[in-house]
Amino acid sequence: MSIPDPIFRPAFAITRASHVVLRVADLQKSRAFYVDTLGFVVSDEDSNTLYLRGLEEGCHHSLVLQSGSEPACQRVGMRVLTEDDLDLAEAHFRRNGLPTQWVEVPFQGRTLHTADVVGTPLELCATMTTQPRRIMDFEVFHGACPQRIDHFQVLTNEVRSALEFYMGVGFRLSEYIVHDDSDELRAVFLQRKGNPHDIVFVNNAGPRLHHSAFTIPEIYHLMYICDLLGRNGFGAGVEWGPGRHFGPGYARFVYLRDPDGHRVELFTNHYQTIDIEDEPIRWQVSDLNTGRWGTPPPASWQQQGSAFAGAPLRQPDRARPAPAPAAAYAR
Amino acid sequence: MSIPDPIFRPAFAITRASHVVLRVADLQKSRAFYVDTLGFVVSDEDSNTLYLRGLEEGCHHSLVLQSGSEPACQRVGMRVLTEDDLDLAEAHFRRNGLPTQWVEVPFQGRTLHTADVVGTPLELCATMTTQPRRIMDFEVFHGACPQRIDHFQVLTNEVRSALEFYMGVGFRLSEYIVHDDSDELRAVFLQRKGNPHDIVFVNNAGPRLHHSAFTIPEIYHLMYICDLLGRNGFGAGVEWGPGRHFGPGYARFVYLRDPDGHRVELFTNHYQTIDIEDEPIRWQVSDLNTGRWGTPPPASWQQQGSAFAGAPLRQPDRARPAPAPAAAYAR
Amino acid sequence: MSIPDPIFRPAFAITRASHVVLRVADLQKSRAFYVDTLGFVVSDEDSNTLYLRGLEEGCHHSLVLQSGSEPACQRVGMRVLTEDDLDLAEAHFRRNGLPTQWVEVPFQGRTLHTADVVGTPLELCATMTTQPRRIMDFEVFHGACPQRIDHFQVLTNEVRSALEFYMGVGFRLSEYIVHDDSDELRAVFLQRKGNPHDIVFVNNAGPRLHHSAFTIPEIYHLMYICDLLGRNGFGAGVEWGPGRHFGPGYARFVYLRDPDGHRVELFTNHYQTIDIEDEPIRWQVSDLNTGRWGTPPPASWQQQGSAFAGAPLRQPDRARPAPAPAAAYAR
Amino acid sequence: MSIPDPIFRPAFAITRASHVVLRVADLQKSRAFYVDTLGFVVSDEDSNTLYLRGLEEGCHHSLVLQSGSEPACQRVGMRVLTEDDLDLAEAHFRRNGLPTQWVEVPFQGRTLHTADVVGTPLELCATMTTQPRRIMDFEVFHGACPQRIDHFQVLTNEVRSALEFYMGVGFRLSEYIVHDDSDELRAVFLQRKGNPHDIVFVNNAGPRLHHSAFTIPEIYHLMYICDLLGRNGFGAGVEWGPGRHFGPGYARFVYLRDPDGHRVELFTNHYQTIDIEDEPIRWQVSDLNTGRWGTPPPASWQQQGSAFAGAPLRQPDRARPAPAPAAAYAR
Repeated sequence: MSIPDPIFRPAFAITRASHVVLRVADLQKSRAFYVDTLGFVVSDEDSNTLYLRGLEEGCHHSLVLQSGSEPACQRVGMRVLTEDDLDLAEAHFRRNGLPTQWVEVPFQGRTLHTADVVGTPLELCATMTTQPRRIMDFEVFHGACPQRIDHFQVLTNEVRSALEFYMGVGFRLSEYIVHDDSDELRAVFLQRKGNPHDIVFVNNAGPRLHHSAFTIPEIYHLMYICDLLGRNGFGAGVEWGPGRHFGPGYARFVYLRDPDGHRVELFTNHYQTIDIEDEPIRWQVSDLNTGRWGTPPPASWQQQGSAFAGAPLRQPDRARPAPAPAAAYAR
Repeated sequence: MSIPDPIFRPAFAITRASHVVLRVADLQKSRAFYVDTLGFVVSDEDSNTLYLRGLEEGCHHSLVLQSGSEPACQRVGMRVLTEDDLDLAEAHFRRNGLPTQWVEVPFQGRTLHTADVVGTPLELCATMTTQPRRIMDFEVFHGACPQRIDHFQVLTNEVRSALEFYMGVGFRLSEYIVHDDSDELRAVFLQRKGNPHDIVFVNNAGPRLHHSAFTIPEIYHLMYICDLLGRNGFGAGVEWGPGRHFGPGYARFVYLRDPDGHRVELFTNHYQTIDIEDEPIRWQVSDLNTGRWGTPPPASWQQQGSAFAGAPLRQPDRARPAPAPAAAYAR
Repeated sequence: MSIPDPIFRPAFAITRASHVVLRVADLQKSRAFYVDTLGFVVSDEDSNTLYLRGLEEGCHHSLVLQSGSEPACQRVGMRVLTEDDLDLAEAHFRRNGLPTQWVEVPFQGRTLHTADVVGTPLELCATMTTQPRRIMDFEVFHGACPQRIDHFQVLTNEVRSALEFYMGVGFRLSEYIVHDDSDELRAVFLQRKGNPHDIVFVNNAGPRLHHSAFTIPEIYHLMYICDLLGRNGFGAGVEWGPGRHFGPGYARFVYLRDPDGHRVELFTNHYQTIDIEDEPIRWQVSDLNTGRWGTPPPASWQQQGSAFAGAPLRQPDRARPAPAPAAAYAR
Repeated sequence: MSIPDPIFRPAFAITRASHVVLRVADLQKSRAFYVDTLGFVVSDEDSNTLYLRGLEEGCHHSLVLQSGSEPACQRVGMRVLTEDDLDLAEAHFRRNGLPTQWVEVPFQGRTLHTADVVGTPLELCATMTTQPRRIMDFEVFHGACPQRIDHFQVLTNEVRSALEFYMGVGFRLSEYIVHDDSDELRAVFLQRKGNPHDIVFVNNAGPRLHHSAFTIPEIYHLMYICDLLGRNGFGAGVEWGPGRHFGPGYARFVYLRDPDGHRVELFTNHYQTIDIEDEPIRWQVSDLNTGRWGTPPPASWQQQGSAFAGAPLRQPDRARPAPAPAAAYAR
């Protein structure tokens, strides 16, 4: 299977996964989950919207919750480096037949609404209002002590299209998974910021948001947050883990479902990947059982995701069922 | 339901859970599991026997592995305080119609073989050969860094008999579980050493050893040992966890199956219970879902245990199925 | 140097270090330190007194703060097992010419005020009012998450007298330090509850309270609490550590001074010592440099302690200066 | 005080701190320190050179030890993105009157030797031989489990020159310290890889290497490595910490001196800084006492550093003594 060559000097510079905008049914319930339990910092709030950030983040928000009748992911946000990059991005997306629209978004600089080639609704900006990093404000450390947003995972049946599109704008492929019996792509892990993921695409009916991921400091917090979630009535929201991925990213993770079913990953570790000689790591599905321990992901984790607002599911073109855990792994 | 009164000055002093003797099929495989992976210290070994202890233990062994054709638990070991206590114990067990025999056991002082009222084969002694505590020998810290033995869990359909027998010799009941619809005992947690468990009895066909438990230092080790087990080919042996008990003991645990299927619990935390006003904590089965998060125990954990050598299963007298996880807990 | 033989069946049963009563100048400042920062649980409070306990403690208090004009330690509290033990204790202390007085103390059962042979004011009781253990109430976990009281350290020039007195009532000597050039005792570590310390005596002008010690869960808390103390204006109160003792107890510690200068040790680890063959571990002062790293204790830690209320300093009879760190250890 | 504007599209792309080359007196002693104790992975070794990397590093080396008669830092290594960047860098350094030389270095691609404007000997390359990341090879995790190189700190009396030079080639200033009584720069923290440091310059006689810094996973490792160093005879090498910086970077650190006196920082945490609106954080020397706890840095840490081979000390032009800890911080 051929992987496109990386473009080290893309036409415009997307720099990182920036923020996610989620529509939720009950803002107070979401606040109890994300702020009172997980420990996100509130940057601003009004009756309809909650702007949250992690303890180390100096940008205004990495997680925006808006009340609305039906849970959905509104948009996935990415940063570009400068205002020039934003104009170049607009031209690029337009030239590729993708929707572009300049919008006003509170606490953000000039903002472009667009979508990628598999239908993921995107929001790009170069700047946000700044906020103090709370990294030394130990008295506000709470719950999981979320530090910063790290990446998104999107479900789509058009994994190869996503790969080509994002590599074409300068993303690098850190890792990918192919099926055992063919070179067909099961998942691609793409990055701009020098660690293994900014956006990940996995083969399933889409576009849907599988999860947004945030970093937390230590294994201690991975276990403690589960205890606190249980205590605060969110125990059933611990969907999978604490555990370990035995494939791309190698994360020590826990996956949570928020009160609307949106999925959040908290994890403690990733690796740096910046150098030109870092080739994408290739995994076959069956490799993912090597070294494995712990409960396999539940069916919900394998199949469910948040709809994107205004982005209906496309016809599956080359859907493949999620692979069963290898027999060797079962007791 | 009535609980016997504690006896604060018993006729003889059992002081603590001491050691467990397991029969294993392949001593080298067990060594790879317990020594090379979990990190137990080898006190002595010959072609048939491996004597292991935790990093902080100054006694010769807390885990003895003997090769033999069929996996079984040979005996559960308890310490008495003095040689006098041993003689008084012998008299007590004999008077109660239980088998008693003085035996020679390497690295132990005078040793009594007997059994409790539900058929658990016991081994009592007042002293062992001493070994240096390795608590500051950081260069031997490895794997889970097991510190010391803590308790045993035994399956039996005669939970009330076990309760009365052990409280009669000075054990205190720290916690117990009753069924929701009756006062019938589901499990009793008994202790001598001032933390909540030395020996636990849970309702199931027995006598069988459900698990032996060892303390480890930090949550870090709880996750790291799973990773190392996976890496060393023992990933399928991670039976349940890392997780949290939402009932007696509150332990942060991981349950492992060794190469012969013997179950070991590693956990990081317990509480002190010494005072006379510490009343046994009563749980109903349905209470155990409060605050719960994470995967329920697999069927193997609920039903399987190690046979005791020479102690055939007794007829179940009041067997009850393991309770299903509460509906409220299922997604 | 001769160590007395342990008495395994003493005339009455002291069971453990129980609580400490400190007089403080400003109760609100002490509350900010112990409750808002360290994370102790408030069992009760009135305008003059604050009753605190650790997260796992079911007894009413392990730390009592009383407002008063001059900072001092009022009393060191110990538990006896039963009311009978209390009467036997009263007789014993009286027979030895030590002061005894029955007093009423809120939230405690019958209480005996007495003193040991070196002048430490003691308070003995068999019971307290019980309180819920907060061990699973994760939403109140805060600061250092103190779990329970562990031990006291007392300064006295009469270390041998203290040793003989406490071993005479059933304490066991877990470890001791002698000077390099003589067998003179520098420090003795005495225990009843089966881990290495309940009360420790170190050679210095006394009687004075050097510190009370509380357990905390993980190394994480050892570092985090320092950060939080700094943030809350108590940074100068971090007197020594986080560090490691290279002698008795081997604790991973941090020593704090509260707003009145009373010293508190927080530590994460100790070992179990119950068996009859556990001989006291002998250290020479020079052994304490083996394996050493980190800043030596400051002069304040070596010399300062809290006065006991109503217990004037006795004439030093065999005072020895604190040993200088070995030359080999200095850079 | 004026700070230059950042250059977001520099003429060539330096991407990150890459490696450090140290001359050591006894390679076996250094191996005992870095490999057997700290836990670095050996990529290659011969009788004169040891090539080491961290557990997550896929590049061949981040730490090179060469035996030689006099301890010194040979070079500080940086990565550029592509071979083109290397040529552009060569032209830039040459144009600025700095020495440039193409050299052959084992396991590296085309390599440029040059120096920065304050005399730091630099080594630039675009590629290295790759090695497997050991991130999942849990059986080789050992000691501090070093993950990857993060940054260098260099002493110089020409801090402003360093600032202007590095910002001129695209480095961003994340934080800086000025003296209380003037705007004179005391230290500048410069970065390329999106976290706060790649290279740091602090006012002192120079050029000298103050330290190289490596990331480690958890606070647990910060304490454990000190214990292991002590045990392995390197206890006196724990120069400062474990502690916390109360200024630029906020790191939870420990500073070590290797057998030749070269200083290594191990730390657990930094923050991400990528966005264009991230302004440099300005500190005055007196700010650095806010929230402070713990032992101030010893004189050795404040004054000593490794000479750079072939780079004699320049005349101090605006040397300032290291500021004394604020009186408010002393007990």
